[in-house]
Amino acid sequence: MPIPSQIVSDLELDHDRARRRGYPEAVLCDAKTVDQVRRVAAECRERAHGPVLFTRADPARAEAVLGELPDALHVPEARMVAWPPRPPEASGGTVVVVGAGTSDLPVALEAELTARYLGRPTELVVDVGVAGLHRILGHLELLRDPAVRAIVVAAGMDGALPSVVAGLVSAPVVAVPTSVGYGASFQGVAALLTMLNSCSPGVAVVNIDNGYGAGHLAAQIAAPGPQPAD
Amino acid sequence: MPIPSQIVSDLELDHDRARRRGYPEAVLCDAKTVDQVRRVAAECRERAHGPVLFTRADPARAEAVLGELPDALHVPEARMVAWPPRPPEASGGTVVVVGAGTSDLPVALEAELTARYLGRPTELVVDVGVAGLHRILGHLELLRDPAVRAIVVAAGMDGALPSVVAGLVSAPVVAVPTSVGYGASFQGVAALLTMLNSCSPGVAVVNIDNGYGAGHLAAQIAAPGPQPAD
Amino acid sequence: MPIPSQIVSDLELDHDRARRRGYPEAVLCDAKTVDQVRRVAAECRERAHGPVLFTRADPARAEAVLGELPDALHVPEARMVAWPPRPPEASGGTVVVVGAGTSDLPVALEAELTARYLGRPTELVVDVGVAGLHRILGHLELLRDPAVRAIVVAAGMDGALPSVVAGLVSAPVVAVPTSVGYGASFQGVAALLTMLNSCSPGVAVVNIDNGYGAGHLAAQIAAPGPQPAD
Amino acid sequence: MPIPSQIVSDLELDHDRARRRGYPEAVLCDAKTVDQVRRVAAECRERAHGPVLFTRADPARAEAVLGELPDALHVPEARMVAWPPRPPEASGGTVVVVGAGTSDLPVALEAELTARYLGRPTELVVDVGVAGLHRILGHLELLRDPAVRAIVVAAGMDGALPSVVAGLVSAPVVAVPTSVGYGASFQGVAALLTMLNSCSPGVAVVNIDNGYGAGHLAAQIAAPGPQPAD
Amino acid sequence: MPIPSQIVSDLELDHDRARRRGYPEAVLCDAKTVDQVRRVAAECRERAHGPVLFTRADPARAEAVLGELPDALHVPEARMVAWPPRPPEASGGTVVVVGAGTSDLPVALEAELTARYLGRPTELVVDVGVAGLHRILGHLELLRDPAVRAIVVAAGMDGALPSVVAGLVSAPVVAVPTSVGYGASFQGVAALLTMLNSCSPGVAVVNIDNGYGAGHLAAQIAAPGPQPAD
Amino acid sequence: MPIPSQIVSDLELDHDRARRRGYPEAVLCDAKTVDQVRRVAAECRERAHGPVLFTRADPARAEAVLGELPDALHVPEARMVAWPPRPPEASGGTVVVVGAGTSDLPVALEAELTARYLGRPTELVVDVGVAGLHRILGHLELLRDPAVRAIVVAAGMDGALPSVVAGLVSAPVVAVPTSVGYGASFQGVAALLTMLNSCSPGVAVVNIDNGYGAGHLAAQIAAPGPQPAD
Amino acid sequence: MPIPSQIVSDLELDHDRARRRGYPEAVLCDAKTVDQVRRVAAECRERAHGPVLFTRADPARAEAVLGELPDALHVPEARMVAWPPRPPEASGGTVVVVGAGTSDLPVALEAELTARYLGRPTELVVDVGVAGLHRILGHLELLRDPAVRAIVVAAGMDGALPSVVAGLVSAPVVAVPTSVGYGASFQGVAALLTMLNSCSPGVAVVNIDNGYGAGHLAAQIAAPGPQPAD
Amino acid sequence: MPIPSQIVSDLELDHDRARRRGYPEAVLCDAKTVDQVRRVAAECRERAHGPVLFTRADPARAEAVLGELPDALHVPEARMVAWPPRPPEASGGTVVVVGAGTSDLPVALEAELTARYLGRPTELVVDVGVAGLHRILGHLELLRDPAVRAIVVAAGMDGALPSVVAGLVSAPVVAVPTSVGYGASFQGVAALLTMLNSCSPGVAVVNIDNGYGAGHLAAQIAAPGPQPAD
Repeated sequence: MPIPSQIVSDLELDHDRARRRGYPEAVLCDAKTVDQVRRVAAECRERAHGPVLFTRADPARAEAVLGELPDALHVPEARMVAWPPRPPEASGGTVVVVGAGTSDLPVALEAELTARYLGRPTELVVDVGVAGLHRILGHLELLRDPAVRAIVVAAGMDGALPSVVAGLVSAPVVAVPTSVGYGASFQGVAALLTMLNSCSPGVAVVNIDNGYGAGHLAAQIAAPGPQPAD
Repeated sequence: MPIPSQIVSDLELDHDRARRRGYPEAVLCDAKTVDQVRRVAAECRERAHGPVLFTRADPARAEAVLGELPDALHVPEARMVAWPPRPPEASGGTVVVVGAGTSDLPVALEAELTARYLGRPTELVVDVGVAGLHRILGHLELLRDPAVRAIVVAAGMDGALPSVVAGLVSAPVVAVPTSVGYGASFQGVAALLTMLNSCSPGVAVVNIDNGYGAGHLAAQIAAPGPQPAD
Repeated sequence: MPIPSQIVSDLELDHDRARRRGYPEAVLCDAKTVDQVRRVAAECRERAHGPVLFTRADPARAEAVLGELPDALHVPEARMVAWPPRPPEASGGTVVVVGAGTSDLPVALEAELTARYLGRPTELVVDVGVAGLHRILGHLELLRDPAVRAIVVAAGMDGALPSVVAGLVSAPVVAVPTSVGYGASFQGVAALLTMLNSCSPGVAVVNIDNGYGAGHLAAQIAAPGPQPAD
Repeated sequence: MPIPSQIVSDLELDHDRARRRGYPEAVLCDAKTVDQVRRVAAECRERAHGPVLFTRADPARAEAVLGELPDALHVPEARMVAWPPRPPEASGGTVVVVGAGTSDLPVALEAELTARYLGRPTELVVDVGVAGLHRILGHLELLRDPAVRAIVVAAGMDGALPSVVAGLVSAPVVAVPTSVGYGASFQGVAALLTMLNSCSPGVAVVNIDNGYGAGHLAAQIAAPGPQPAD
Repeated sequence: MPIPSQIVSDLELDHDRARRRGYPEAVLCDAKTVDQVRRVAAECRERAHGPVLFTRADPARAEAVLGELPDALHVPEARMVAWPPRPPEASGGTVVVVGAGTSDLPVALEAELTARYLGRPTELVVDVGVAGLHRILGHLELLRDPAVRAIVVAAGMDGALPSVVAGLVSAPVVAVPTSVGYGASFQGVAALLTMLNSCSPGVAVVNIDNGYGAGHLAAQIAAPGPQPAD
Repeated sequence: MPIPSQIVSDLELDHDRARRRGYPEAVLCDAKTVDQVRRVAAECRERAHGPVLFTRADPARAEAVLGELPDALHVPEARMVAWPPRPPEASGGTVVVVGAGTSDLPVALEAELTARYLGRPTELVVDVGVAGLHRILGHLELLRDPAVRAIVVAAGMDGALPSVVAGLVSAPVVAVPTSVGYGASFQGVAALLTMLNSCSPGVAVVNIDNGYGAGHLAAQIAAPGPQPAD
Repeated sequence: MPIPSQIVSDLELDHDRARRRGYPEAVLCDAKTVDQVRRVAAECRERAHGPVLFTRADPARAEAVLGELPDALHVPEARMVAWPPRPPEASGGTVVVVGAGTSDLPVALEAELTARYLGRPTELVVDVGVAGLHRILGHLELLRDPAVRAIVVAAGMDGALPSVVAGLVSAPVVAVPTSVGYGASFQGVAALLTMLNSCSPGVAVVNIDNGYGAGHLAAQIAAPGPQPAD
Repeated sequence: MPIPSQIVSDLELDHDRARRRGYPEAVLCDAKTVDQVRRVAAECRERAHGPVLFTRADPARAEAVLGELPDALHVPEARMVAWPPRPPEASGGTVVVVGAGTSDLPVALEAELTARYLGRPTELVVDVGVAGLHRILGHLELLRDPAVRAIVVAAGMDGALPSVVAGLVSAPVVAVPTSVGYGASFQGVAALLTMLNSCSPGVAVVNIDNGYGAGHLAAQIAAPGPQPAD
């Protein structure tokens, strides 16, 4: 039986097409050794192959990247390195990223940076957990701005914030549970279940601590598209 | 070695003391056969032994109780039968019972009736889930009334309401997760975990669907006591 | 302290605003008795309050709705009743709904109907599980159509289809795990975990069997662009 | 649509009201870096903003606090730092804190200190696990003292002590499972489940190792209030 | 390679030896159809093969046994049928069976009957849960009787009773968790974990609701001493 | 971009090729309504499309199949219907199917029939659980027969038999856990975990109660040697 | 109400009685700091209070004990220190301790030492896992010796050995799951479940890695017969 | 009763027979101390006892082996040491090992080496995850080669690749989940469940990260045909 070689080339082409849209590749650093991360960075430099986001990069891995790509942007609070350092021109709808507590900040920042490097205008709102409702209600104008096409909400512990936000807005909410908490939080499982069972419709859930995935999904949702305005 | 017979009599006496305070006994009906329930009810009648709350009583078990104790009060929506039918005179702080959705009503009612039969003044507020924040905020005056000493909050699905309520008040919140939901709600486990991980302090958690336990705990919290006013 | 009464009215107004956009209310029937469902339907009729989607309606509950709203549309395969029967004029991007196997059809249909009643043009593709890759690859043209702004993928058992689809397209994928399977599928948990761990970015996960939520989320994602301020 | 700015100010005011009651803020240190902890402590000093409890503070984080707030009270056994060092004048009912074993002591101490810094008179009873019943029975007089309005019970392993205590007293019991144990204790889950399933009514459960939450809840329960004495 | 036929005959002989000691065979009825149960009973009759205990026999299965073995003893409360009806002469140490609540009675009875049909003297103590400590303390003389060589304790919900009993006696305790409870009892898992984590040494745990296994184990523990060689 | 239509046709052809080898299609009946099963059977008849195995067919679904395919073979003990009734000529290595207890028989039979309908010679050995080792050791000659290329072992409860068998033979063992048991067997999860952790190498695990999958896998393993190119 | 002071003294006396029987106290070292362990050891020395077993003692904690009790016996392989070093005179039935693999040795040794220090004659058999049945069968004579009154079996991974042993002997088997394994062994949970679901009766289960508890239980089971009254 | 000594010798002989076939012994290093590993290696050298595979060997343990067996082959990427260094002559069907991502490489390599040291010809294919289908489709010719008798697929995260591969080939697939991932991957449990629920038949599952077991099983499946009797 002949090899269906056309399959491979067709699909491969399409893979390039996705890259041409400006979506960066992502390199999950914490599943790799420092040396593997360095080799990936070196390959990027040599083949001028980018843009690329290095995620979950601890100081040693970030340093390995910067050794090969000295002009890359390192944001330690988000454990990310981006190369080339400058994000693409922003287009499409705005992505708002909301973090419930200060401990959720790394995940929120990772989401915000990812969406920005995928080409969306972004806004960041932090420390607005449900224990003090006035905090999130103070941002209603932004959350309901018609230019906002996706809202990422990062929350740990009880994970209640996405339900509250989704009940206040009409844009889709991307909920990212964080592993913040202890005991029966089960490293983010409690927050994950809360979000999957949201009593408000319009909540899209991603994996625990997956700030990259949340930002990527939000950027896809808010992508500029051919649909006509009303 | 002599039997420490005094242990038994001392503790037994104390058991009676608890009963003298007017706290009813509870009979969990769904772990018993219809016939066992009937025998318990008959024994109550014969020994004029009360007050007693029959909880989780389906129609057949409720009927068995009423056959023996015809003057008992049956509240089908709460799956409860109370005997004697009249609750004690209300004393102590007020217990407010809050139900997130209409499906949480049986558990909320069970809590409210239990607190009332333990002698507290009660208030019931329903259908105030976090998907529409204006609903719970519309009851702030009641929730913050200084006469209110305990607030029971029953919620299923995401179980987010107790976190929100506890952030708005200074009275302790008794959170009772309900098995309302499907899929990853895991028959109330999702709501239970949310409540255990509340980002607001002051949330006391009881077992899933344990309206009786929530009402009992709230009544104990709000019991009249010897402490001086401010 | 005065009651913050403006809070309630402001938020309440906003709730109405959401309804004016044409998003129907949803009534989850299987958490309610037949009689409760009938009462809700009667209230809709009397107050001409609609549109409304009755979801997870078994024959008895569907009949209860139709007794009060005889002109409602009943789709037994999706366990849904919609009233009024006619969906709104379609606008915004297209929502494609993909079902892996024939047993996933009820959930897929529920998603498709929901998106349609929220006002989106929809397409339905079924029986395209990964055990026969040619089946999903045969629909690549549709899946990659620029008019498609969201793709719902319903799958049970291994739940692998959303990962495969998300790797083939650039639109966001709403993955809905179904409880189809047995043994270690744990009523959809296996599929849920697969989807949360998708190796392709761009996968938004909702609760097990939550076809309504998937369709609602997809309709929000594909909503017609820059929304004018009120 | 105008921003409901009054919402924010009303709720914000109320947040201050809670603080005026003397309830300290809590800073969960182990979810923060040493530097973040130091910045929080510095901010407290500069703004004379207190009282504040730093919980779950390991030596490095405690030292960071003390560097900024040299007069703070550090209780290493409870992993806590309190500032200002002096608790408020005690009022309201007494909070008794009971620890089952010596390994439960850090959690018990955290509860006791928290209740004291929230203004309650407290008593501490330790090493009274159910393997030697005479130990807890030797404290019956204290546990049944009418001045006692809340009893915190910290226990790991089988978590059986709260059931036993709640059966002996009429005050509400705040049960805090600890992660003491190994194997099938699952870091406190076994004790947590035991407590949620207590066969004695009147048991309020908080998260595993949540001594702070237990003490806070107990202090709220025992708060001085307007209800008349018997 | 020759078949190691001696293995089979040697081990088979031993199997018969165990039976000669008077330990009955057990037939777990609820994993078999009514017809399968009837066939097993008929085979017993025809081959005069006994003694045999039919466990977990609902009315239909018990009736099937009695149709073939009319002189068998049926104890509906324990869901057991024993044949021949008369237990062997009692020998060895006494087995005390303790049931925490009335709902644990079927499991406790199953354990007691099994121990009796394995030839031990038995005692049954019921309704002595830890919510009222005086109840179990009232039986201390029996529990500490030197003739008692094993104590079975059946308990559901919090499963705390075995820890308490094991702390009071020096005989080994066989703890059998029951599925009595609801919500976070997880059909007996909470009680199982409590027992596995007992803070008192000397607790042997068997499967949930395994009254037969508990009674069998207790009978083996209390078997008459230094067994003579065959 | 052109549709990669060749992909579909190439893969589709291959799908037919698999069918030409004589591997039947499987219809999982319990995930379908009686009517859906009937329609599938009718379609088989009309298109003379076979062979097909209807698995997990309860009496109603089996009857629906037989109404359309009267000459099909129904094996109620295995809950299977095969059409056409005659299995293909046997070829390849022998598949031995071993069932630990009588309650494992339905799953064992399903595996045996599946392997037979995929064209393998089969042997069935039942009631050889590890509680009586002589039983399995009595079949060593068969298990070690060089003609045997795969051994399916179905076991519930402790699931220990596959470890024992794999230690005795050199052929690969396909372990299928069954849901036989109660309490902490968790519907087959205990047996599944036992098998995944086998201390003997050479154990292939399939889903709980998946007799069809076990038989299919064994038949593939034992397929006649070096397959000729098409 | 007077304090039931007699309760305490009666029970306390009994606690001493247990100690007079020669059962040592156990100090679980890994839940304590090095300093706490040292203090306990010093107290033992000063009050000549023994015998005592220090369990789960890593090198640092063992050294702390030996610093205070230089003549204590340290068995590093069992992570135990015993003081005084000499076990009591052996009496009662023999306890055989069986370890499945070499990695189970620490737990097996801990059980063997505990039984010996509780006064039983002991035997140790190791490396007899079910992957090579000839290994355990080679010890049948010992296992079936009538002098053997209890058999401890320690096993990790599949945990199948206790089922096999219990099927070969008539003495009770104390099964102790170990955390040996990886992946789906879940730190001993797989072995624990296997043991709880043993298809052989007569298996008593203790917590994961609880060698001390297994040895203690076995020693109680094998205690010398009809105990004389005090 | 005489000891069935023939049992032991018969089974022992058979154990040697298995070794004579050239299957190496495996030493799981990470459950052993460095010193224990060294002693095992020394014993191999002294008794010229081989072949042996040291698996899960970190650098320290590998060095311990090489100190005793300097000519052994160390493959750090697979954490394996093989001795003697040369694998046996290849025979039987080909084993193809497929790794989804680069992080799955250690497990894939372990499987490939194991199969090679058990005497099979092997092929390795890596970085072919389902997020880019063209990658695995580019290897269809190899995967469908009639000489291939078993395909090992190692995958973490969503674990979807085995389902896809099994749908493309007729050889059995040995699926080995890896612990690659984070959050709701639960250290490989998500991938494990995906594989157990594969919608394609012909998938044999082994434990998480069990590359050795996967390679061993595949080598047994692909063993050269009808084995001659000894």
